[in-house]
Amino acid sequence: MEKKIITISREFGSAGRTIGHMLAEKLGIPFYDKELVDHIALESGFAPNYVEEHGEHAPGKSIFAYSFAQQSVPGIMNGLSTADFLWNVQCNVILQLAEKGPCVIVGRNADYILKDREDCLHAFIHADMDFRAHRIVTLYGESEKSPEARLNEKDKRRSVNYHHYTGQEWGATENYDICLNSGSLGIENCVELLYSIVKNSK
Amino acid sequence: MEKKIITISREFGSAGRTIGHMLAEKLGIPFYDKELVDHIALESGFAPNYVEEHGEHAPGKSIFAYSFAQQSVPGIMNGLSTADFLWNVQCNVILQLAEKGPCVIVGRNADYILKDREDCLHAFIHADMDFRAHRIVTLYGESEKSPEARLNEKDKRRSVNYHHYTGQEWGATENYDICLNSGSLGIENCVELLYSIVKNSK
Repeated sequence: MEKKIITISREFGSAGRTIGHMLAEKLGIPFYDKELVDHIALESGFAPNYVEEHGEHAPGKSIFAYSFAQQSVPGIMNGLSTADFLWNVQCNVILQLAEKGPCVIVGRNADYILKDREDCLHAFIHADMDFRAHRIVTLYGESEKSPEARLNEKDKRRSVNYHHYTGQEWGATENYDICLNSGSLGIENCVELLYSIVKNSK
Repeated sequence: MEKKIITISREFGSAGRTIGHMLAEKLGIPFYDKELVDHIALESGFAPNYVEEHGEHAPGKSIFAYSFAQQSVPGIMNGLSTADFLWNVQCNVILQLAEKGPCVIVGRNADYILKDREDCLHAFIHADMDFRAHRIVTLYGESEKSPEARLNEKDKRRSVNYHHYTGQEWGATENYDICLNSGSLGIENCVELLYSIVKNSK
């Protein structure tokens, strides 16, 4: 079965986004990451930065957020919490984008949302703490928190969100066709491996 | 860093052994699976079928097994249980084989035993239950137990053994450079992917 859609789940700082971007360029197909945020923002009525902050993170349980969302989008959210409403929009957007044709989608639980499509290749990119810590400091600079604390916090939020909406364990091998350690294999090598799978599936 | 040693951990029925064998042939390097059992048997004084049955399985806790082993190899086991004694021999054999030169090693927690060598590629092969159930019935025939029960039992024993001796979780992505779903990717494809990593590392 030809693999047309590639979903990339990734640990923070593992270069999963970069790998996805390079892969999409090499394959000459669309790449959805920030673009996905814009689509979800457009469909949901939320601001892009709100979607970016909450779309992959732990579902908001605060009554305030719930009430606020109810008031701000009356009639549309249909009794759902902000997080659940965003999840529904995210599912619809990802399903529609996959219908449009070949693409690479980074994050946002796309592996689960598209699990019933056989033309998908689901990849998970991870790396050692040292590799990722060095990378986020180089890319995003220092902050008050240690790089390790920032990595753990971000991954924890992604993991809780994934588990909440999928019932599956984020990063567990069984959810993916291939899991790659970008730290030990190298970024270009990961792109080549994914590219060869897609090319050989045709 | 050139990858000279390839360790393959695998779910039962995932064709990990077959993939390792094909990879070793393609690379023209030794393949250690049953051969490993013979080495360990020779070093330990236990019969090959005993080593095969217990070397990757949950450590024996029975007092009977412990006493029996103490009596059968007096002075050599140095107060260790049979399982712990076998584990020590297994570690030594695997470290020595890796020193001898390039090879493919299947199972026996070799990924952990060789974790400090940078010239190793650590792979984990897994597959869906349906793929593996079909495969073990085709290869080993039917038995009184359902294929699913046989798979779960074998994997559980490997998992407990791995956790006991390594403190790590068997099959967790972070322990491997690459994890492949042989059911969705295909056996030949898995061989090609591993082969390309080794070749590109030179």
